[in-house]
Amino acid sequence: MTLIEEAKKGIQNRLIKDIAKNEEISSKELLKSVSKGHLIIPKNKIRRVSKPCGIGKNLRTKVNVNIGTSPDSSDTDNEIKKLELSVCLGADTIMDLSCGRNISETRRKILDLSIIPVGTVPIYEVSVKANNNIHAIKEFDMIEVLRTQAKEGVDFFTIHAGITKDTIRILKKSKRIIDIVSRGGAILYEWMRLHKKENPYYSRFDEVLDIAREFDITLSLGDGMRPGAVADATDSAQIAELENLGELQKIALKKGVQTMIEGPGHVPLNQIKRNVELEKNICNGAPFYVLGPLVVDVAPGYDHITSAIGGALAAFYGADFLCYVTPSEHLRLPTIDDVREGLIASKIAAHAADIAKGNKSLLKQDIEISKARKKRDWKKQFELSLDPGKPSEYRKMSKPSQEDICTMCGAYCPIKITERK
Amino acid sequence: MTLIEEAKKGIQNRLIKDIAKNEEISSKELLKSVSKGHLIIPKNKIRRVSKPCGIGKNLRTKVNVNIGTSPDSSDTDNEIKKLELSVCLGADTIMDLSCGRNISETRRKILDLSIIPVGTVPIYEVSVKANNNIHAIKEFDMIEVLRTQAKEGVDFFTIHAGITKDTIRILKKSKRIIDIVSRGGAILYEWMRLHKKENPYYSRFDEVLDIAREFDITLSLGDGMRPGAVADATDSAQIAELENLGELQKIALKKGVQTMIEGPGHVPLNQIKRNVELEKNICNGAPFYVLGPLVVDVAPGYDHITSAIGGALAAFYGADFLCYVTPSEHLRLPTIDDVREGLIASKIAAHAADIAKGNKSLLKQDIEISKARKKRDWKKQFELSLDPGKPSEYRKMSKPSQEDICTMCGAYCPIKITERK
Repeated sequence: MTLIEEAKKGIQNRLIKDIAKNEEISSKELLKSVSKGHLIIPKNKIRRVSKPCGIGKNLRTKVNVNIGTSPDSSDTDNEIKKLELSVCLGADTIMDLSCGRNISETRRKILDLSIIPVGTVPIYEVSVKANNNIHAIKEFDMIEVLRTQAKEGVDFFTIHAGITKDTIRILKKSKRIIDIVSRGGAILYEWMRLHKKENPYYSRFDEVLDIAREFDITLSLGDGMRPGAVADATDSAQIAELENLGELQKIALKKGVQTMIEGPGHVPLNQIKRNVELEKNICNGAPFYVLGPLVVDVAPGYDHITSAIGGALAAFYGADFLCYVTPSEHLRLPTIDDVREGLIASKIAAHAADIAKGNKSLLKQDIEISKARKKRDWKKQFELSLDPGKPSEYRKMSKPSQEDICTMCGAYCPIKITERK
Repeated sequence: MTLIEEAKKGIQNRLIKDIAKNEEISSKELLKSVSKGHLIIPKNKIRRVSKPCGIGKNLRTKVNVNIGTSPDSSDTDNEIKKLELSVCLGADTIMDLSCGRNISETRRKILDLSIIPVGTVPIYEVSVKANNNIHAIKEFDMIEVLRTQAKEGVDFFTIHAGITKDTIRILKKSKRIIDIVSRGGAILYEWMRLHKKENPYYSRFDEVLDIAREFDITLSLGDGMRPGAVADATDSAQIAELENLGELQKIALKKGVQTMIEGPGHVPLNQIKRNVELEKNICNGAPFYVLGPLVVDVAPGYDHITSAIGGALAAFYGADFLCYVTPSEHLRLPTIDDVREGLIASKIAAHAADIAKGNKSLLKQDIEISKARKKRDWKKQFELSLDPGKPSEYRKMSKPSQEDICTMCGAYCPIKITERK
């Protein structure tokens, strides 16, 4: 039985109990949400995940970190370092987006070492193995890769099943600035053009579900049509694809396969609420996994910040899962420092949304750090920080003349002045 | 005549015409907003400001950069470098918050070199000259410093006139985690405690106005009671002070003195809209100048990001002026790199809000950079970036195998794949 099937029968296994406890909700509520498809727990049944997580209704907002090699930068060890840092700084899941040499070895190593759920975009491996000759890719390869990766233990797959002949027709009629910015979406778009055929992940969605069902893998229905410019946001191509994803989610739920929906992308501030509502309405309340959203296009080098703004708002309005974006977005494969900056930016967005939605346990951390700030207890402030390392380094680099203050205000520290007796 | 008085008479001087043109609104509308106190143009009548700006109703959101020495770090040259970088990266105003040695020399140098409006918090100079012996400060000093700095050309003053015996009584009854986090607020609070007297900036507000009027200096009514922890936000002490500021703003407007209102601080996401509405209602539509707001307390080292989230939302809901916050906030005097990160984070917040509010001219920059992105025209992308330096450096540090792509996707660049014919 898959988790959804167990949930429908009300079976409370260890995983359910642990997550319910950790999230401070009842196991019963958790099971109900899983059975309705409003909440997922990505975990391949054959893999041991010592730090699993739930994503969806009434849970804390989760954060994903993308790692992985690229054709121009294929250093598996470096990606493993990114994984280790991410886990240490509190990433909830990791996606291996490798497209470099030794793609299979990199993935296997990540699966071997990751204590958190691991996701992939299987079409990448097909494409890399075909040496980027998209014409050479066979439908069979696209399905078979799922089985290969499933057996290795991948916990969730991004499948761009919503990009269809129909949505491409709508895309072509639109006046987008940038048509497709999704790597998986672009590969499928090009495959469909060359083969003059429907998207296999759409036409053979049943086979995708069979494999997912067998290993209880969660599907992350990818948004190949996500806007890559704020002026392109919430257009007809994006919504047409979202409608496909909503249909597919329904079918998956019936088959007992957990599913989440991927979302934009570049979206101006005033359209974020609408985007979350659209997803929840069109996709039957399925968990919403957003990339960013980036609220401006004009800040390359700072897209972890453009995304933190969008992500905080999206999560506040009901998005469940934030995919981090690093300062290197649009520019290069992220460095380890970029991973740190990107992850913390997303963690801030998630935390900001969760305390604004009334999560008292998380707010306690803010209250405690503020009390430590009042006492100028620096050690405790660092311990309670989302990233203890950076603030403690900053302070070391700028030693104050008195131990209990900082070099910003020095003796004019307002907290200290108002303590005088 | 002050600008407000001229505006009331419908006089369109050069300044008004230039700003109206630059902001793409009519001079008539601009004058109307100035005369009603809904829009300010901070400029001391004796200073030459070659890049002035308007702040308020229907204008683009503006960004302020704080610089200045501290007792523990008094290097004027370094602060001048921060000024130069800030102007270069598009700061709209600068505040000299120096509390270090040679405070007057630092300020005079900044006034001499800055082509944008310069603000100060005059109580700092009083306090530094008293060597932090707050008891030794005389009421006379507090007023006299205004005249000194006015004569030097300071364009706007932060005056914490809203912190009164009454608001302190309310503060003391409240259960705040951190009572006062405003440096100016703390000095006045302590002065009032030691002298058992009302705040001179409140009781002698007429004298403050006389000096401001004489030099047409803009007042920035400071929020000594701003919350320093998200759990303290929007409490009775904060609102009591805001009500004082609203009263003072009305008096200033009658006297022809331009005024803006300073605002928080640490505010959770869900209270930002309310904070902006409260200010606009209580303070008669005066421009709102917010510090952050920081939407979480738990991210020292990343408070430019916690502030960018809050600032974007605040500006979207109607805040007019964002005070930048750097990664060093709560930790140390900012470095030059911190200034860069903090300023760009605020510029992103302002831009995000402005395009979301429908500013077509600004959106054009997003459209143009997205077109350049589609063409993989890297040079143009950098030119159109809020900070051209950082992305161009990033790219140099990670050379792709093909000129027109980046090392993130390499040959799997989705934009390039979908261009195949």
